[in-house]
Amino acid sequence: MAQFTDDVGAFMSRNPLGGGSGPLGGLSWAVKDLFDVKGEVTGYGNPDWARTHRPAAGSAQVVLALLDSGGRLVGKTKTVELAFGMTGENVWYGTPRNPRAPDRFPGGSSCGSVAAVAAGLVDFALGSDTGGSVRIPASYCGLFGIRPSHGAISLAGACALAPSFDTPGWFARDAALLEQVGAVLLPGGGGPAAGPLIKVTEAWDNAEPAVAAALAPALKGLEEAFGPALTLAPVPDGLGSLRDAYRALQSEEAWATLGDWVTATQPALGPGVKERFAAARDVAPEQASRGRTVRRQVQAWLRPLLMGGAVLVYPTSPCPAPLLTASAAEQERVRLATQCVTSIAGLAGLPEVTLPAARVDGLPVGLSLVGEAGSDRALLSLAKRAAGVLGLG
Amino acid sequence: MAQFTDDVGAFMSRNPLGGGSGPLGGLSWAVKDLFDVKGEVTGYGNPDWARTHRPAAGSAQVVLALLDSGGRLVGKTKTVELAFGMTGENVWYGTPRNPRAPDRFPGGSSCGSVAAVAAGLVDFALGSDTGGSVRIPASYCGLFGIRPSHGAISLAGACALAPSFDTPGWFARDAALLEQVGAVLLPGGGGPAAGPLIKVTEAWDNAEPAVAAALAPALKGLEEAFGPALTLAPVPDGLGSLRDAYRALQSEEAWATLGDWVTATQPALGPGVKERFAAARDVAPEQASRGRTVRRQVQAWLRPLLMGGAVLVYPTSPCPAPLLTASAAEQERVRLATQCVTSIAGLAGLPEVTLPAARVDGLPVGLSLVGEAGSDRALLSLAKRAAGVLGLG
Repeated sequence: MAQFTDDVGAFMSRNPLGGGSGPLGGLSWAVKDLFDVKGEVTGYGNPDWARTHRPAAGSAQVVLALLDSGGRLVGKTKTVELAFGMTGENVWYGTPRNPRAPDRFPGGSSCGSVAAVAAGLVDFALGSDTGGSVRIPASYCGLFGIRPSHGAISLAGACALAPSFDTPGWFARDAALLEQVGAVLLPGGGGPAAGPLIKVTEAWDNAEPAVAAALAPALKGLEEAFGPALTLAPVPDGLGSLRDAYRALQSEEAWATLGDWVTATQPALGPGVKERFAAARDVAPEQASRGRTVRRQVQAWLRPLLMGGAVLVYPTSPCPAPLLTASAAEQERVRLATQCVTSIAGLAGLPEVTLPAARVDGLPVGLSLVGEAGSDRALLSLAKRAAGVLGLG
Repeated sequence: MAQFTDDVGAFMSRNPLGGGSGPLGGLSWAVKDLFDVKGEVTGYGNPDWARTHRPAAGSAQVVLALLDSGGRLVGKTKTVELAFGMTGENVWYGTPRNPRAPDRFPGGSSCGSVAAVAAGLVDFALGSDTGGSVRIPASYCGLFGIRPSHGAISLAGACALAPSFDTPGWFARDAALLEQVGAVLLPGGGGPAAGPLIKVTEAWDNAEPAVAAALAPALKGLEEAFGPALTLAPVPDGLGSLRDAYRALQSEEAWATLGDWVTATQPALGPGVKERFAAARDVAPEQASRGRTVRRQVQAWLRPLLMGGAVLVYPTSPCPAPLLTASAAEQERVRLATQCVTSIAGLAGLPEVTLPAARVDGLPVGLSLVGEAGSDRALLSLAKRAAGVLGLG
């Protein structure tokens, strides 16, 4: 087994496991430290969590599936504390370095997994995505990443944050491997994701102009290959209403899921995470109720539209990775803008694949393809064709 | 059998037929004089056509189906010559009067059928629609009308104009009867048409501002009942590209269908019709070829989008009925603007129902609902609910 130096600080622990023949034979992988690996304490990014939990009695379903398929597990990777953050910062274990932009955040919460893949330490890595935790770091670090359809892949044996949004997800340096992992984890069947492309105008407008401009040639390339994109404003009240709905619901669920532990343990929480839990505790019931209405509406809007194979296309993130020195206010501004787009697939439960389609001043930015719930396999296949068309390998 | 005076000049002939028990028992109807009725010469709106054709050996499929269902056929109604015109003018037999706006055109080519229903002379009437020949007169005369999915209902025994666009269609004064006729004529099954509503922005922008403004409250009412409408720009190159594609293809097909007869017979043709046949003869093959490409593209765009039940909504016509005194140039301007919207359902083969949703200075204007091919029954049901919501009876 090859040894390597974890010079980006991606890993929490390295206890190799598995590696054999199978569809992922010969490939190495890492897993975010919120999935159980039998016999190890799942740390969930927070020392008090680790201290108050026993070693896992079994491994998470996805971990077992990947081990069964012959992949060689290298170890567990860092996560933002309780997966409740988007920059990838972890003040307790150190923030993994963004291998493509060392003075910038790697993105999170799947920060160690994205860094491990981007640095070439493993072939692919498992993360999880509630509000962007795979999509955003993939965009920041120039990787392919997928947030599958909600509920398509079991989260048994994984720590929860907001169960109606939580999904696993994974990163790879090329679209072929992203699909190959999907072939192991995803259920068979599912609908098409074959076009037409639909440009979600508000999501393009929501991006920084330099990001939209950098991604425009990629969209043009996809249109040349797959036909011109239609344009859709999918939300009468604007993406801000989706973001607000997402925030209220995610907060309510996060407190329902983790509030007891937070109250009983009074854990030390890093900056940002602490405030987010305080806000989660205090979310107004009317806000969450409004959020549920918006969520049902978004599902009623988008699912019929995508059922025939249409695919939404928009910038994964409104901006490249923020500087490590970004102020708390700047980080919150980025978070608010980002959730305007991540909440689309989040609220509707749709699969989203991000492609490292462009750079802005040398910094990676991703382009997302979003299909109907259940179309994950077709979407990964489309993403591979798109990567070919765009010369992304 | 009740007698009546045809004071709007709707009828070509009145040879009553049928009338019995069945789903349409007790209802009277009329049929556009391009459908065969056994033993009668089908006139197709032109004296030279009538002169050169024998009495029909059998009745058109739709005529038989309506007779079987118990409806009492009152007679045959006027049509624009060879169905090749949109105002409803017929210089040989007289232009039927628009009962809702006597100084204006009734719309066509199904001009007699629309006038007969609008004047209350029959309960419903059969027309045909190639490029708007049911939808436009329904809008002009304040009726409900449907152009079904292309190919859903047999046109055997009907005169053809452009077969890949030709459909039958019918008019009624209320949405319940429109649906009731559909229950007799349409095949069973078919997809949903349940929303979301999609406002086709370009079609609203294409309408005269007063028409768009008059229909806005109706859209608002539908949104309150069925949920907010998304907005879609369904054609990257604008609706003008659809219109041009439609015109080239319709012309090419019209010449392929009727050119031999026109050449052999050298019929006298009324103003406008004559010029349209001349243009049809001379349509450039490259134009038609481009049109075919656009048509395939429009189908690839719209069908997947609507497959899940989404319904396009836009003004049926960009304007109310033109004045009878409108110049040829003004008529052509209206025709060009109108084909921008009628070509959407036309090129994609989609069913379109128009509702008499508003008035502009007392003149009726229609609002269209357009569903996926095959969703006709669901669309008629939705239209009935919409009529209820909007208080259209």
